[in-house]
Amino acid sequence: MNLPLGFRYAATYAGIRKQSSDDLALIVADSPAQAAAVFTTNLVQAAPVRLARQHLKSSRGRVSAILVNAGNANCATRTGERVAELSCKAVAKALKTKRQYVLPASTGVIGVELDPKPLTEAIPKLVAGLSAYSFEAAAQAMLTTDTRMKVASEAVKLGHGEVRIAGMTKGSGMIHPNMATTLGFVMTDAAIDAKYLREMLAEATRSSYNSLTVDGDMSTNDAVVLLASGASGLQPDRRQRQIVGAAVRRVMESLARQIAMDGEGARKLIVIEASGFKTEDDARKVARAIANSPLVKTAVAGSDPNWGRILSAAGYAGVEFDPSRIDIYLQDQLVCQRGLAANFDEGELKHKLNYSEVRIRVALSRGGKAQARMFTCDLTEGYIQINGSYRT
Amino acid sequence: MNLPLGFRYAATYAGIRKQSSDDLALIVADSPAQAAAVFTTNLVQAAPVRLARQHLKSSRGRVSAILVNAGNANCATRTGERVAELSCKAVAKALKTKRQYVLPASTGVIGVELDPKPLTEAIPKLVAGLSAYSFEAAAQAMLTTDTRMKVASEAVKLGHGEVRIAGMTKGSGMIHPNMATTLGFVMTDAAIDAKYLREMLAEATRSSYNSLTVDGDMSTNDAVVLLASGASGLQPDRRQRQIVGAAVRRVMESLARQIAMDGEGARKLIVIEASGFKTEDDARKVARAIANSPLVKTAVAGSDPNWGRILSAAGYAGVEFDPSRIDIYLQDQLVCQRGLAANFDEGELKHKLNYSEVRIRVALSRGGKAQARMFTCDLTEGYIQINGSYRT
Repeated sequence: MNLPLGFRYAATYAGIRKQSSDDLALIVADSPAQAAAVFTTNLVQAAPVRLARQHLKSSRGRVSAILVNAGNANCATRTGERVAELSCKAVAKALKTKRQYVLPASTGVIGVELDPKPLTEAIPKLVAGLSAYSFEAAAQAMLTTDTRMKVASEAVKLGHGEVRIAGMTKGSGMIHPNMATTLGFVMTDAAIDAKYLREMLAEATRSSYNSLTVDGDMSTNDAVVLLASGASGLQPDRRQRQIVGAAVRRVMESLARQIAMDGEGARKLIVIEASGFKTEDDARKVARAIANSPLVKTAVAGSDPNWGRILSAAGYAGVEFDPSRIDIYLQDQLVCQRGLAANFDEGELKHKLNYSEVRIRVALSRGGKAQARMFTCDLTEGYIQINGSYRT
Repeated sequence: MNLPLGFRYAATYAGIRKQSSDDLALIVADSPAQAAAVFTTNLVQAAPVRLARQHLKSSRGRVSAILVNAGNANCATRTGERVAELSCKAVAKALKTKRQYVLPASTGVIGVELDPKPLTEAIPKLVAGLSAYSFEAAAQAMLTTDTRMKVASEAVKLGHGEVRIAGMTKGSGMIHPNMATTLGFVMTDAAIDAKYLREMLAEATRSSYNSLTVDGDMSTNDAVVLLASGASGLQPDRRQRQIVGAAVRRVMESLARQIAMDGEGARKLIVIEASGFKTEDDARKVARAIANSPLVKTAVAGSDPNWGRILSAAGYAGVEFDPSRIDIYLQDQLVCQRGLAANFDEGELKHKLNYSEVRIRVALSRGGKAQARMFTCDLTEGYIQINGSYRT
């Protein structure tokens, strides 16, 4: 891991979830970091999302710490606001920083009161345990139905120096994340102003997290935060910001792919590419319709080269195109040419559909030059088992 | 069954599908009936849909016969148009009627050439076997992954007489219909002009078939046709047309409920009602977002009163409302009041969620008066098994 300078991490078990694995994580910037964030667009927003927005606004994009709990979304409850405020206050006190410099984030079940006591009581211990090397412990503590920790990092050369970018994420987001949430936290030690961080984050989110959530569904708690400590001592110029921005994008795309690959019950990552459309928005709509189709996702689960379902999903995406100009590739094998069945060896293709990554490509000929990509996963019995079981 | 006068039916096994159950059905009006139809809005349209549109247009809404095959959608193939034309021609010849008076309809796999020979060869036998009492045999022959035949009928008094309405449908449409299609055929012996039939059909479709398809997904082959033979000798006046229209709507709603109940792998019918919104469109969007949520559908499968998922789905429906004014009922039990957890007996509610019909009600207080209803079903392992198996 290329861990950026200027950050420390900690994790502990505060007793929020039943099974005794860490459920509380803290990310701390040694001095207030520049910050940008994107939050759920759901009308129903959890208390920590609302408070994080407020804090970011009043701190003008400065963040000293992010406190994340798993096991309870702190959403649609009577005491949500108060619990989120108490937590931030406790963290600010322990770190001797301002309350507004602390962002809260929660993931877990909706509608169940979150007891602030075990949470606030765990904070002194968390702070005492802060370490530059507990990055993965923090990444682990925020998981819910995830089966694997999800982290990614890069180091990029800037002039004679180097800056580092590292991110952690959670979300077992098959359709939309179970237990309500995708969270992502990306840190860099480049010195970048919040204004530029917001641009970087918006661009990177488009090709990563927003290319992942099937249905465009966002939960009540989704949040992705980008922090810059400046501890590398390097302040990238305009051209160098492009380089850092590209690295942030790669880190976030890796995190998004890891979420898709770990989708609830998933056995396969599906990467859908749509090209030859007039606008990127059109291409994305087509890729998204295919990514959202349960029939496509179950066909991939069954290694069935059922391109008719892909064609049909493209047809109802709400984008105007001529179906007789569409080519469809499965694992780079042409299966549908100009809207009609192509000749291919079904046995061989079926074998290739057993791979852990399945690529679906829809190309419109004589169309435009815009393209888009979506990440999703196959739909298996495992998804039903995870989500159909009784909540308590 | 209240079978309308003036229609005959037949079914046979033409060898289009592998298992030897009837796969070809014929509906015949003794003299050309008045007709209205709605078709899929998918950009990709099967040959029979395109030809049926043409025929209805050139016949100005007159239909003598509908030929339906199961096992092959006759979509995205090289010979699709020709096969559909040959079939209509063969039916027209055998019935001594015009080609344009025959509508073709197909359901089954996409992208596999449909051999016209067994189809056209079976037609003389089909015509020879026509009978007013083979309604259910025809309904049976059009099924694909359906586990049950789906029919409904009504008789309504008009003055001193009576008219009959009977419908048959197919579709195991959990998410959107597997193997590509929902088909519906509704017959009446009232004498009603095609112009009025179109109005009736549009209105009845809104609260039945268009309140059923989850995701708003329509396949490449969907078609619903309403025929009026006039054989009752009764021509309803404007007021009486309202009565007939209401009966058509009830028949179509029954058919739509039967499809949801027989959804692939489904164990439960889910009826979602949204009320208190400003417009019917808003209410429908909210009901639809809930109906489309795999998390809600798996929760119902697991009898889990997880109202947080319902609240979250309402929140991303794309409708502006105040989440603190929302009440949610599950099986008529208030579970979420003004956006917050209500007190209820979870054990008792869990028991009620085991019923074969589950009612979800989302009511906005101090909002508008518009409401909408959607039909869907729970999402179970059975769905994955049906759709994940290899196609051939």
